[in-house]
Amino acid sequence: MKLLEQKIRSNGQVLPGDVLKVDSFLNHQVDPELMSEVGKEFKRHFADAPVTKILTVESSGIAPAVFTGYEFKVPVVFARKHKSVTLKDDMYTSVVYSYTKKVSNHISIARKFLSADDSVLIIDDFLANGQAVEGLIDIINQAGAKLLGVGIVIEKTFQKGRQLLDKRDIPVYSLARIKAFENGQVVFTEEQEKSDGTNVK
Amino acid sequence: MKLLEQKIRSNGQVLPGDVLKVDSFLNHQVDPELMSEVGKEFKRHFADAPVTKILTVESSGIAPAVFTGYEFKVPVVFARKHKSVTLKDDMYTSVVYSYTKKVSNHISIARKFLSADDSVLIIDDFLANGQAVEGLIDIINQAGAKLLGVGIVIEKTFQKGRQLLDKRDIPVYSLARIKAFENGQVVFTEEQEKSDGTNVK
Repeated sequence: MKLLEQKIRSNGQVLPGDVLKVDSFLNHQVDPELMSEVGKEFKRHFADAPVTKILTVESSGIAPAVFTGYEFKVPVVFARKHKSVTLKDDMYTSVVYSYTKKVSNHISIARKFLSADDSVLIIDDFLANGQAVEGLIDIINQAGAKLLGVGIVIEKTFQKGRQLLDKRDIPVYSLARIKAFENGQVVFTEEQEKSDGTNVK
Repeated sequence: MKLLEQKIRSNGQVLPGDVLKVDSFLNHQVDPELMSEVGKEFKRHFADAPVTKILTVESSGIAPAVFTGYEFKVPVVFARKHKSVTLKDDMYTSVVYSYTKKVSNHISIARKFLSADDSVLIIDDFLANGQAVEGLIDIINQAGAKLLGVGIVIEKTFQKGRQLLDKRDIPVYSLARIKAFENGQVVFTEEQEKSDGTNVK
């Protein structure tokens, strides 16, 4: 998605340790018009997928997820993060390790909002090591729901998240794919569309 | 806003202690089409206000705030919540007490996203005791920014939040105003438009 790549180039900050800071339009300050385009692009790509529900994780996933939900006209559920293990009967819970913050969080979704009848599209802001997405997939499996695909705003192709999903033939569509940081500059993969795989039927 | 009142009547759950649970369309599961209408209604009401930025607090404020930001074509900044007091030079920080959870949280916004040049509209999901809004106003004051008004999705008129804002002549517009819970049913104020005050110029 050219518009997003331009925004990353002009507004993203590359920090030591391969950290890309995009808090001026995605993570803290949000650009709603860009998020609307993000939602439209996910809809264009996953157009044929019979999505009944969109799942994400608070807080940075919410903006891209709700605009995508708006395009699909389906509800969006955002998993809540918890420090402690307060397992409750009425919640699906999974553990997510954050490599950035070096802590484990629990994420949970109320059982009443996800069932075996649901066909789910996961939307998240970043795919790096894939821990958040793995946590959501765990919850989808607990519910017996069907996973149709994963939509990511920014992917770091050099970290293991994408590989983990490809191995299990899960359709992943990332709007910006970063293959490296060189001299403080972002290098995107060249073959965006080709690497997106086929559409979900 | 009739559509919202209908949704609250049909999908809200009244729990003991005057708690209204709206996690099926606002707090956990989100109805993006309703949120889009919410954004349009805030735009209609605050149409003449020269808004440069919208402020909210993670996580439940994000969905209504980003759709409102979309209508105004301005950036949305969501304050981050922290348990601990990690005061940083590059952040504005305030303390917010939650009556529901009986804990104090710190909320913060990066200084670079709010300045004396900004004219701010606050959007939040609930107004009860007004603590979250007070925290955001504190941050707006620290930045020397101008507060144009407060847009609330659901207000409990019988708690003190609205009064605190009215005393300081801050324009507040709430889309659903609940004056009581009677026998597990929600009772809305009758004079919605009249009680909204005048438009912001």
